[in-house]
Amino acid sequence: MAVRHYTLDINLSTPVDSTSVVPGLLSIFHEQELSETIHDTNGHGYLATFVGKNGRLVVLRVHSHGLVTIDLQCHEDDNIAQLDNLLNALEKKLKVLLNGNITRIKRLPVLVRGAKVDRYWPTADGRLVEYDIDEVVYEEDSAYQNIKILHSRQYGNILVLDGDVNLAESDLAYTQAITGNGRENYAGKEVLILGGGDGGILAELVKQKPKMVTMVEIDQKVIDGCKMYMRRTCGNTLDKLRGDCYQILIEDCVPLLKKYVQEGRTFDYVINDLTAIPISTSPEEDSMWEFLRLILDLSVRVLHPKGKYFTQGNSVNLKEALSLYEEQLGRLSCPVDFRKEVVCVPSYLEQWVFYTAWKK
Amino acid sequence: MAVRHYTLDINLSTPVDSTSVVPGLLSIFHEQELSETIHDTNGHGYLATFVGKNGRLVVLRVHSHGLVTIDLQCHEDDNIAQLDNLLNALEKKLKVLLNGNITRIKRLPVLVRGAKVDRYWPTADGRLVEYDIDEVVYEEDSAYQNIKILHSRQYGNILVLDGDVNLAESDLAYTQAITGNGRENYAGKEVLILGGGDGGILAELVKQKPKMVTMVEIDQKVIDGCKMYMRRTCGNTLDKLRGDCYQILIEDCVPLLKKYVQEGRTFDYVINDLTAIPISTSPEEDSMWEFLRLILDLSVRVLHPKGKYFTQGNSVNLKEALSLYEEQLGRLSCPVDFRKEVVCVPSYLEQWVFYTAWKK
Repeated sequence: MAVRHYTLDINLSTPVDSTSVVPGLLSIFHEQELSETIHDTNGHGYLATFVGKNGRLVVLRVHSHGLVTIDLQCHEDDNIAQLDNLLNALEKKLKVLLNGNITRIKRLPVLVRGAKVDRYWPTADGRLVEYDIDEVVYEEDSAYQNIKILHSRQYGNILVLDGDVNLAESDLAYTQAITGNGRENYAGKEVLILGGGDGGILAELVKQKPKMVTMVEIDQKVIDGCKMYMRRTCGNTLDKLRGDCYQILIEDCVPLLKKYVQEGRTFDYVINDLTAIPISTSPEEDSMWEFLRLILDLSVRVLHPKGKYFTQGNSVNLKEALSLYEEQLGRLSCPVDFRKEVVCVPSYLEQWVFYTAWKK
Repeated sequence: MAVRHYTLDINLSTPVDSTSVVPGLLSIFHEQELSETIHDTNGHGYLATFVGKNGRLVVLRVHSHGLVTIDLQCHEDDNIAQLDNLLNALEKKLKVLLNGNITRIKRLPVLVRGAKVDRYWPTADGRLVEYDIDEVVYEEDSAYQNIKILHSRQYGNILVLDGDVNLAESDLAYTQAITGNGRENYAGKEVLILGGGDGGILAELVKQKPKMVTMVEIDQKVIDGCKMYMRRTCGNTLDKLRGDCYQILIEDCVPLLKKYVQEGRTFDYVINDLTAIPISTSPEEDSMWEFLRLILDLSVRVLHPKGKYFTQGNSVNLKEALSLYEEQLGRLSCPVDFRKEVVCVPSYLEQWVFYTAWKK
C-alpha cells in the first residue's frame, strides 16, 4: 500500500516570527484530532509534527528566513477529500495570517510513494518527472538487465531497461532520428543494427526494401517482451528471427564486429542503438568509455567508405558527457567527421542529441 | 533560502516488524547527532523524527504493510556530500537489515522547495514535473494575468501565463500544428489570429506572404515581454504593431469579432491561440464553456465558407474536457466538421491535441 505525500510551501518577502503564525493554525490541527509535538531546532526556526489517529502525519516548519513548509503524509486509502479540506484550511488561514508578506504559494501534485506501479522515472539530466503510467505489462530480469514494459496513457507501452526509459510506442521520432530523418535511401543497402531489441529501427527499415538488415541484439528477453507489448513499434518483425531482407542474431555484437573486420565485410549503414552514452565522467567510468570507443572503432571499421554511422547521444543538457563522446570520435583508428541534431522524443521528456558520423 | 527534501522509499515483499529494522539504524542517526522523538501512531506502524543541530530533519516511518519511507529535509546551503553519505548509509544498512525482503528501492531526485526560481510547473493532466529552469527573465502582473518568461537550459525561454506553460522558444511544433502542419498555403490569404501574443504564429505566417494577418492580443505586457525575450519565436514581428502584411490590435477580441460579423467580413483562416480549453468540467465552470462557445461561434461566423479554423485543444489525457469541447463544436449556429491531431510540443512534457474545423 502506498503513501500519499502532499506539500504546501509559502515563500515570504520578509523573515517571519513563528509566534505570529503558529497559534492561528493550531485550531485546524486540533479539529482534525492531530497530536502535536514541538521540536527543539537549536534556533533553526519552528518545527512541529502532528500525528493523527489514522496514521496521518503533518510536519509544519516555519523557517526564519521566510519560508513556511507543510508536509502531509497519509495512507493511499485515507479520505482524500478530508485531506484536501485540511490543506485548503491551512492555506486559507496562512493567507490571512501572512497577509501582504507572501511572494509564492506552491502546492505540488501529490507525491505517491511506494506504489505498486511506480510513475517516477527521472530524466537523464536528473530531473524529477512523473509519467502517466498505469500498469506494468512485462517485467523480467535477464542475464543482462532488468526489463520492464510499462503502459502510459499517452505514450502507449514504454520499454524501460535498468530504470532508463528506452523507447515508447509513441516514439517514431527516435527511430526517424537514428536512421537519418528521411534523408537516406535504404533501398538495396546493407545495414547493421547494434542492439535495437525493441524492433523499431528494423520495422522502419524493412519498409524501404534494403538488401539485408542484420540486427545483433544480445538479449532474447527484450525481444520476447517487445514482440508482445511493443507492436506499434516493431510490427511483426520480431515474430521471426529471419525475414525476406533481415536477420536477427541473438548474440554479443563485439565478437561479431571483430569477425566482420577480419572478413573485410562492410555495411552501407551501421546504426548503434545499444544504449545512451555514459553519463558519468568520473575516473572509475574509464572502462565504460573504453568499451564505447571499442564499439565505435569496430563500427567504423566495418563501415563502407561512403557509409554512414548513426547513433543516439544523450540529453542535450549533459554537455560534458556529450563533449567527452565527441572526443572519442576524434580518437578512432580511422578518422571520421560527424554532425549532431537535437530531437524531441515524446516519452523522453527532454531534448535528445543524435549523431551521424562518416569516414573522412 | 530553499529547503532540500530527499526521499528514500523501500518496498517490501512482506509486512515488517519495526523492531527488526529500527534499532539497526539508530547508530547512524546518533553519529550524525540527530535527536530522536518516537511518536505514538495508534498502531499505524513506527514513526520517529530526528532533528539535527543545523536544522536537519529526518522522518523515518516503517509502515507495517511493508513500506519504509525516509524523508530528509535540510537547508539549501547544508553540506550536500554529508547528506548523501547519510542517505547512502541508511540505504546500505536497510539493504542488510531487510535482506531478501526488498522489492524496490527508490530515491527520487531531490525536491527543492521554496527556491528563488521555481522549477516545478505541473502538466495540464496534473503530473509533477521538474523543468531545467535556471532564471526568471521577465515577470509582470498585467490587468489580465501573471506573466513570466523563464529560461530553460534545453527549451530556451518559456512563456508562462498564470502558471501555465504557454510556449517555449523550442516549440515550433506548436506553431506548425496550429497553422495546419504545412498542409495550408497562406500566400495571399486573409488571416485572423485570436491571442497569439508570443508572436510565434505571426512570425511563421508572414514568411508565407499572406494578404493580411490581423492579430488581436488583449495584453500589451505579453507582447512587451515576448518581443524582448522570445525572439527565437517572434523574430522582429512584435517590434512594431504593423508590418507589410500584418497588423497587431491590442484589444479584446470579442467586440472586434462582433463588429466583423456585423460588417460581414470574412477570413480565410481563423487561428484561435487564446488559451487551452478549460480543464474543469464542474457546473460552476459553465460560464467558461459559454465563453468558449461564444468565441467559437463568432470565429466560425467570420470564417469564409471555404475557410479553416485552427485551435489547440488540451492534453491528450484530458479526455473528458476534450469531449466536452467537441460537444461545443456540435452546438454552433453554423454546423461544422472537425478533425484532430495529437502533437508533441517539446516543452509541454505531454501529448497535445490540436483541432481543425470548417463549415459543413
